[in-house]
Order: sequence, then C-alpha cells, then structure tokens
Amino acid sequence: MTKKSIILDCDPGQDDAVAILLALASKDDIDVLGITTVAGNVPLNLTESNARRICELAGRSDIKVFAGASQPLMRKLVTAEWIHGKTGIDGADLPDPSMALQEAHAVSFIVETCLAAEDSSITICPIGPMTNVALAMMQSPQIIPKIREIVCMGGAVKELGNTTPAAEFNIYVDPQAAKVVLESGVPFTMMPLDVTHKALVTPARLQNFKDLNSPVGNACGGMLDFFNRFDMTRYGFDGGPLHDPCVIAYLIDPEIFSGRKVHLDIEVTSELTMGQTVADWWDVEEKTPNAYICDDLDSDRFFKLLTSRLALL
Amino acid sequence: MTKKSIILDCDPGQDDAVAILLALASKDDIDVLGITTVAGNVPLNLTESNARRICELAGRSDIKVFAGASQPLMRKLVTAEWIHGKTGIDGADLPDPSMALQEAHAVSFIVETCLAAEDSSITICPIGPMTNVALAMMQSPQIIPKIREIVCMGGAVKELGNTTPAAEFNIYVDPQAAKVVLESGVPFTMMPLDVTHKALVTPARLQNFKDLNSPVGNACGGMLDFFNRFDMTRYGFDGGPLHDPCVIAYLIDPEIFSGRKVHLDIEVTSELTMGQTVADWWDVEEKTPNAYICDDLDSDRFFKLLTSRLALL
Amino acid sequence: MTKKSIILDCDPGQDDAVAILLALASKDDIDVLGITTVAGNVPLNLTESNARRICELAGRSDIKVFAGASQPLMRKLVTAEWIHGKTGIDGADLPDPSMALQEAHAVSFIVETCLAAEDSSITICPIGPMTNVALAMMQSPQIIPKIREIVCMGGAVKELGNTTPAAEFNIYVDPQAAKVVLESGVPFTMMPLDVTHKALVTPARLQNFKDLNSPVGNACGGMLDFFNRFDMTRYGFDGGPLHDPCVIAYLIDPEIFSGRKVHLDIEVTSELTMGQTVADWWDVEEKTPNAYICDDLDSDRFFKLLTSRLALL
Amino acid sequence: MTKKSIILDCDPGQDDAVAILLALASKDDIDVLGITTVAGNVPLNLTESNARRICELAGRSDIKVFAGASQPLMRKLVTAEWIHGKTGIDGADLPDPSMALQEAHAVSFIVETCLAAEDSSITICPIGPMTNVALAMMQSPQIIPKIREIVCMGGAVKELGNTTPAAEFNIYVDPQAAKVVLESGVPFTMMPLDVTHKALVTPARLQNFKDLNSPVGNACGGMLDFFNRFDMTRYGFDGGPLHDPCVIAYLIDPEIFSGRKVHLDIEVTSELTMGQTVADWWDVEEKTPNAYICDDLDSDRFFKLLTSRLALL
Repeated sequence: MTKKSIILDCDPGQDDAVAILLALASKDDIDVLGITTVAGNVPLNLTESNARRICELAGRSDIKVFAGASQPLMRKLVTAEWIHGKTGIDGADLPDPSMALQEAHAVSFIVETCLAAEDSSITICPIGPMTNVALAMMQSPQIIPKIREIVCMGGAVKELGNTTPAAEFNIYVDPQAAKVVLESGVPFTMMPLDVTHKALVTPARLQNFKDLNSPVGNACGGMLDFFNRFDMTRYGFDGGPLHDPCVIAYLIDPEIFSGRKVHLDIEVTSELTMGQTVADWWDVEEKTPNAYICDDLDSDRFFKLLTSRLALL
Repeated sequence: MTKKSIILDCDPGQDDAVAILLALASKDDIDVLGITTVAGNVPLNLTESNARRICELAGRSDIKVFAGASQPLMRKLVTAEWIHGKTGIDGADLPDPSMALQEAHAVSFIVETCLAAEDSSITICPIGPMTNVALAMMQSPQIIPKIREIVCMGGAVKELGNTTPAAEFNIYVDPQAAKVVLESGVPFTMMPLDVTHKALVTPARLQNFKDLNSPVGNACGGMLDFFNRFDMTRYGFDGGPLHDPCVIAYLIDPEIFSGRKVHLDIEVTSELTMGQTVADWWDVEEKTPNAYICDDLDSDRFFKLLTSRLALL
Repeated sequence: MTKKSIILDCDPGQDDAVAILLALASKDDIDVLGITTVAGNVPLNLTESNARRICELAGRSDIKVFAGASQPLMRKLVTAEWIHGKTGIDGADLPDPSMALQEAHAVSFIVETCLAAEDSSITICPIGPMTNVALAMMQSPQIIPKIREIVCMGGAVKELGNTTPAAEFNIYVDPQAAKVVLESGVPFTMMPLDVTHKALVTPARLQNFKDLNSPVGNACGGMLDFFNRFDMTRYGFDGGPLHDPCVIAYLIDPEIFSGRKVHLDIEVTSELTMGQTVADWWDVEEKTPNAYICDDLDSDRFFKLLTSRLALL
Repeated sequence: MTKKSIILDCDPGQDDAVAILLALASKDDIDVLGITTVAGNVPLNLTESNARRICELAGRSDIKVFAGASQPLMRKLVTAEWIHGKTGIDGADLPDPSMALQEAHAVSFIVETCLAAEDSSITICPIGPMTNVALAMMQSPQIIPKIREIVCMGGAVKELGNTTPAAEFNIYVDPQAAKVVLESGVPFTMMPLDVTHKALVTPARLQNFKDLNSPVGNACGGMLDFFNRFDMTRYGFDGGPLHDPCVIAYLIDPEIFSGRKVHLDIEVTSELTMGQTVADWWDVEEKTPNAYICDDLDSDRFFKLLTSRLALL
C-alpha cells in the first residue's frame, strides 16, 4: 500500500481527537497535509483549538491546523454538547494550545493544496459536517479531479438516525454540504452508524487505552470514559461507539471493514427526513452505484490496530 | 378475549388472500363485517374479484365484498405485478367468482358501518394502501370515535424499503392516505417489514400448507410457492415473507408479536423518501407516542396458528 | 345559450350568499340541482345553515342543501372570521332556517347526481375550498366524464395572495383538493383575485343593492357593507371585491369576462408558497393549457346583471 | 451624497454591460473596487471575458476583473443564450480583451476586500446569480458587518417570472445563493422585474444611444437592438427591459425609484416555484421587513441619466 496524503477535516469531539491521534501515529501509512476544522460537535473556536491541543498531545505542533466554516451552508448550526460536553473533548483535561492556528482559511487551504497536487492524489477525510469540503468544491470545481477519494464518517443506512429519527449528526448538521460533496463525482466511501455502532469501546477496550500509561493513553481513556456514557444509556450498548477513527483505520487497513457499492442520495428537501442518507442497499432502483458504504467491521482487529498505533505516540 | 368486529381493507394479493382465509377461519375470534377492496398490488377490478374468489374458496359467499378506490388520493397508482403476477393471486388457479360484488362503494360501507356502531367497537385492518379508510375519515370524521383500532400492514422502521430505498409498498402507493389515517388519532398498530421479513414461508412451512390436502391448502401452497420466489432472490431469504396475515394473527393472539410504542410520522413531502414511515424508535425527539409498532414475532407460533386455522376451512 | 345544470359548492360567506342569490334569481339560465357546503370561510355548521338561510331569503326552501367536509383533506382548517364576521354572513341579520338540511352527505350527492347524469352535463361551481369535489372525484372517478366544466372562484395569478403572500384563501385552505380537481382533466375555469379585485362594491353600487328596497336587497346591502371594510382598508380600494358571484355571472354571460387559456399548477409541496396557483401566463414552459383563467371583467355590466337579477327575488 | 465603494458582481450579458458602463462613467458617485463575474446569462469564461471587453470599451483597463463561480451552489447551471446570444453580448461586436483577468478568485477578492474595509463601507451589487456573494458570506461571515448594502437586480413580485411561471432568471439560477445573501442580515435592496419591465428601451431611447456616435454608444445601440427583440415579442412591449443598469442608477439617484420595505423570502424547496421571490407586499403576515423592493421608476429620468453618463465615456 502506498502512503496516503490526506486532509483531515474535523470538529473535535472526542472521537475526532482519537482519529487525529491515530492518523498522526501512522506516519508510514498516512501523510497529514493539514487539519481543517469546522463547526459541528461544538462551535468552531473550540474545534480549531481542540485540534491544536490534540496535535500538541501527540507531540506534533508542526501540523498545520486551519479554521474553516463557523456555520453550515444553508442551515442554523446544531451542536452536540449533550454528548461531547462543553469543551467538545470533556474528559481529556488538556492545556490551552501554544501552537498557532494557520492564518489561511480552511477552504483556501483545501483549494490551494488540491490545485497544487497531481490528479487523484489527495484523500479528504471529513469526519464532521462537510461544509469546508463543499465550499472548496463549489468555489473551485477544478479541485475535483485532484481528489483521490472522500472517506467520511457520517450517515446511517440500516441503522436509524442518532440526531433525528432519520438522520445521523454529521449529515444532519449540513445536508446540503454532504450532497454537494457526494455529487461531485469523487469516489465516495462512507462509514455510517451501521459500522460505528459495532466499534464499541467496551470496558476491556477502554482499559487497554488506560494501560498505555502515557499522556495519550490517559487522555483517550478520560475522553472515552466520558463519551461512552451517552450511547450506553440510549442504546443499552456495552460501550460507546468510536465513530471517527473508523475513517483513519480504513485508510490503513481497509480489510477491517466490509461494505457494498450502492447508489446513495442525501435528503435535503423534507424537514422530517432532512439529512437522511438514502442508500439503495437492495438495488431496488437499479441506479449506478456512486458510493462505497461500509456496514460491518472486525472490531477486535480495529481496536488492536488503534491501541497499538496510539502506543507509538 | 372478546370477539373483534373487523372491516378488512385489502388488495389481494397472495398474502392478502391468506389473511382473508385466516380471518374467515377464526369465527370465534373475528367477525368480518365486510371486506373492502382497493387498488394496490393489482388494479381494483382484480382485487375485488380476487377477494370474492377467496371468500368462495373458504365457502363464505355470504361475506360482503365492496369495491373502493381505484387510485390513490393524490398520486398515480403503482402496482406490483412483478411480485404478485398478472392476476394478483398467481399460483392459486381459482375460478371466476359467482358471488356478487356489493353495490355500495367501500367508502360508503365503512362510513355507514361505523356510524351505526357503538364507540370504539370497530377494528379496521388495512392490509393494502389506506385510500379507502382515509377517504372515509376525510368525508365523515364522525366515524373516528367508532373505531377501536387500526391494525395495518405497512411501512419499514429499522428495515429498509422494498419499493424505494426508503419506502414499503403499501405506504408508498398512498402516503397521503396513511398520514390521514395515522393522524386521525385512532389507536394505530403497524406490522412493518421488520416483522414480516421474519415471517418467512420456508420450504417446511410451505409443505405444511400443501399437506392440508384441501382446496384451501392447495391454493395457499400454490400462491405462496409463486410469491416466495421474489424476496428469496432479492434478500437471500430461505422463504418469502408472509406480510398481511400478521395483522389477523395479531387480532387473534397479540402475544405472538413484540414491539414498541413510539412516535410515528409519514413522509409526504420529498419524492426521495416519499412514503417512508419515520418512527422515533430511540425516542430521540421525546414526542408522545402515537403508534404501536411491532418489530418481532414468534414465527413458529405464527405459522402454527395459521396452519391450524386454515385446516378448519 | 342552453340552461346549465349546476351544483353550487360553497362556504357562505357574504359573497357566497350573493352568488347563491344570483343563481336562484336566474332560473332561465341556471338549474340549481343542489347546494353543497364545505368548511371554509367559517366552520361547516355555519356554512350549511347560512346556505339554508339564503335559500329561504330567496323564497326557495325547495332547494336541496347538503353538508359536506368539515375540514380540508390533509391540512388543519383555516377560517376567515376576521373578514366575514363570526357568523360568516355578518350584516345580513337573517333568522335561523326552518328548511331541513338534506340527510345525505354532500359528497354522496355529488357522486350520485353525476353518476345519474349524461356525459358532460353537470357544471360544478366551487366557490369555497374544493374539498367536497375532490373527495367525490377521488372516491368515484367515474363521475369525471359526467362533468361539463368546473367554474371556480379561487387563486391569484398576476395578483398577489390575500391569505399568504403567495396564496388566495380558497386554494390555500385546501390546496390538495384544488390539485385533485384541476388534474381530473375536467375543463377548468377559474376566477382568481385578478378578476374579483376589479369587481368592487363601490358606494354607488352598494346603494343600488339597498335601493332594491326588498328583503334580498337589504340583506345584500347589509352584508356587503360589512364585507367591504376589510379590503378597502388593506388595499385602499374604493369598495370590497365581490368574489364568488363572478362564477355565476360567468355562467350567465361569459362575455362579461376576459381571460386566457394557460397551463396551471397548484403548489402543494412548500409551506412558503403552499396553495399558490402557478399559471404560465406568458407560456414560458410551452405546456398544453389546462385551464381558462379570467383576469378581467366589464365590472359595470357585471353589477348591472347582478342588481337586475336580484331585483327579481 | 457620498461616493459609494462598490463591488459589481455580474454575468455580462448586454444589460450587465450597460450597467458596467454606467458605473464606470459615474466616477464622482461610484468607486468600482472590482468587477467579479459569475456563470449566469452565459458560462463563466464568457462573462469574465465580456467584463474585460466592456472595461476596455470604456477605456478602463485598470479595473480589476475576477472570475468566480462557474456553477450555482446546489443546482445545475442554466444559461440564457436564447436571450443574450451565443456570446452573451451579441450585437456589440467587440475585440478580444487584452487586459488580464486577475489571478485571485472572485470570492477571495470579495472576502479580502471586505475584511480590509471599515464597517458598513462596501456596497455589493449582484446583477447576476448571487453565487459569488453567497460563497463569500458562507466562508467568512465576518465580512457581513463590512457590507453597507446589497443592491441587486433579481426577482419578481407582482410581476410574473420570466424563466419559470414563478421565477426570474437571476434568482432561479441560484436560489440557494439568493437566500443566503438575503438572510445574512445585510440591508437588502432589490430591483425586480416590476421595475425593470418599466425601464423599456423604446425605439426613441435606442436612437439616443446610437446618437452618442461614440464607440460606447454604438456598442450599446448594437447590443440593445439585439436584446430588445425577445421581450418585445413575448410581452408585446414597445422596447426591451433594461434590467441591470437600474441597480447602478439607484446608487446614483435613488429618487428615480419608488418601492416598499417588506418581508421577503426565497423559495428553495419546491421545484414548481423554485427561486420565486415571495414578498409580503400587503403585510399579510405582519413580519418585520427585511428588504426594500422597488416596484416603479421614473423611466424618462432613468434613461436621461443613463444616456448623459454614457456620453462621458
């Protein structure tokens, strides 16, 4: 496998934080060109400073972190402090970052990085609302052939929504952005709740993070302890789902995951189903597939990869 | 349990046919006040004549059969000959009916029957598109308090749609009608694909029908043999789902089924998700429940009930 | 001109009342087969009793008056007491009716009357929300070829809405019904606000009603005095618009009106423009015309006809 | 009156061309900070080169011209060669431009110009689809307080649409963009078809352009001769409407125009009415006004201003 050059577009968020750490710990597999942040789990000023906090935790203050959109394209921002806590990374207890935020706008960084790159060379990983990526594509469609693949966390197919009965949080927050990105024609891979609800941080797995006995291990342990409680209560799971790191794990070892190439559409018309990811899993409509959607993973292999990589930091 | 007075509103359809037979075979539990027919699986002229064929097969030419709406309220009729065959009950090989169709319109029969009844005394069982029931309620809302319960087959909750990626056939054909009936305030019980995809006519169960060695057994065997093939191919099931009889079985022995009281809404705005039954299974929105939705059944008990009752005919 | 057999479907309403009187006063031109009433300007119990009051005022207690739908097909009823007053015919001061309401439902009357008639022989005149007519057509599409023409009051083309910025009251109250009726394929003639806002009851014309010096003249004078005030204030008109009688005048003397055959559609999707009558006046989309829409009238000739006919009562 | 610093966002287009000329001819009133171009009347490569052609025609190759969005935010681009001709400025017969296109993206120019400016100091004049302005606001909401006013050409209020029965071209092409700009909260002034259909280039006015006997006069004469034919045929006007220059004339002499402060919304949900500008002209809904919409002008004064200014070039 060749090393992948990625732009990690995120809204940390505890699970975003773990995804950043996994990416930074996987230098042989992944070259993080920059981290772009967006309003989502918490407002933009928190997601961008959290991204910097996590880079510093990983000892990587050299990583470029950019602030992007502070609100969705067409809708009012919805945040999720009820899950992530007031800071977005409650449980981590990290100091204010000392590394600087990049001056350029996240959208400018995405556009300029792609324009300067060869065709099909950049992988973009949106693990929050896709506002930044959509803005870049809308402004400069010339970047589209430069993108090798979109690998995102978002949506729900056979699983129900977690924000409304029909919609998952990342897509619900900015459904228009998701539709723009999906319809750009860039190869589109999605990690919906169907996968992430099987990537559960059980007590034993949580302990494995803590047993790393490192600042990274302690921060992850603290964050996931906090993060676990919500979905364990709602769904009766024996651990919270670790959504966003699935995207990074897929880049490193795609065989952890299984899925299906199907036709996908995003609901942007009706308020009732707004942001639903409508995948034609059974090919009822016989349209050309436009997305690879994962619906299962080998969770032990996933957590083994994750813990072993975090041990490197 | 007291005997239930029902109006069976149907669009036979092989599984409708079995539902009619189950109801007629259960005289101690169910009083069939009349059978109203609607366009759905096949056009109205076929559904009404098929209903009469099945009554005669059951030796019940005394049952009143009415023709109702020949098209949905607001949309063009979609039929499903690709599943049911050209006649709607392919595989049964029944003669033309000799019993007469009632002269009154199905909607008039529903209205007049309800108006003449005591409060909360009539159970209406729509196992096709709900056009007739909606028309009756829209025309004469005074019937609403007379209805004890709506028990319908339709929709999909955690299961995906079978007609579009988001919608099940009965609701997709007339979503506006389903919304009118749901929002009437009458207690609403729904058997979605989540249940019926677990009520599979496996080869062993199919053989049990045939072993009845009666005209009814032979017709059911023939119809379900024909009906099985479609979903076995699409879903890889080891038998086709027996949708509509679940409604009648629920009236006789509700403990066969398990479900949840939740808030339900019907999508009628967006063409992409048109007819989706949006159930808030995890109570994400904390609204007052307005529907009892089944999502599981004891399938052995269901088929045992069904076969034993059909043996009585 | 041959005499027209009409069903007058209304929600009196002062202007409905004048329309009824004009129809009853025009025996040589119009045969009123029945008056069907619907919820609209005021609730159904008032519209049906007002219709009877007006028949008695005209000395025509032989006319059959039917009660129909008490609410729109899919939406909550919106009424307009702020225009019509609490009774719907404020200003008339008429006694309670002594003639009986017909037992049959308005929808049944429409269906049965049409089914018993020759092809293209019945003119239906909806001057309120079209709920009753739509229900009849949805229940029994066989009536459609029996209808010669729909001549309705409703909508706004070049004129803006009077209930929302985009929609006129009659269509706004039940847009789905209007769409069903329009799309039935029956020849469709519409009197929108573009016409009726030019049929103004100026002080001189109001005086002409009063000068009839008859019970009918006095009632019309009183009602229109009351009705005038609202639109005179809003629009700065020098008289209130006399909407509904335009429909009856068109039946008697179509040359009073001018209009255009265009393609018409009804907005039923978006709440913002719900109930808008979208007419392609400039043939921008080059679709086949499906409606004759009037946009102007000879108002002096209209009021002359009206006053002279009311003088006969 | 103080001189206004404007960004002119356009898609030339013959009437855009005249608007540019009027702005450049009005140095004492208007400081053109830059001209940003967008896909609209014709594709982006033509609108940006046409903008440069017109600057050179005016002897102003010093003006900065930027290329912006090549397609609308969420919808497929619709162009209007059937009105404007293949080049967008058919009738002008101008050479290829020799002045360079600016390297920066139009959106970057808008963002950077606004960020560097004082509060409420920049007037943005969108006379095509508002894609560029919306992208700038979505990406960098910090620019919003820097904008003094949006003065745009677009929409139709009492006038019907010219692209669909409900929608005017500029708004129809990118309704989402128009909604974003309108809802930004910047003071919003709109010149809809209600105004521009009264700014007709009659034969006498056309002759006045030609009589300037200058390259600018000849180009305007040629372009408007070409442009006139379409609407004269459709509407029977005695001249084509000169849409875009109304925006610039308003900046110079607002008293040419009259209008009303009302609540405005943009339809973005329903395909039937997509892009309609829904203005509550009669304050039916009693919402706080958010737009100043002109509906009339003193057309002689407008053309006198225009011709006298063009004479200066």
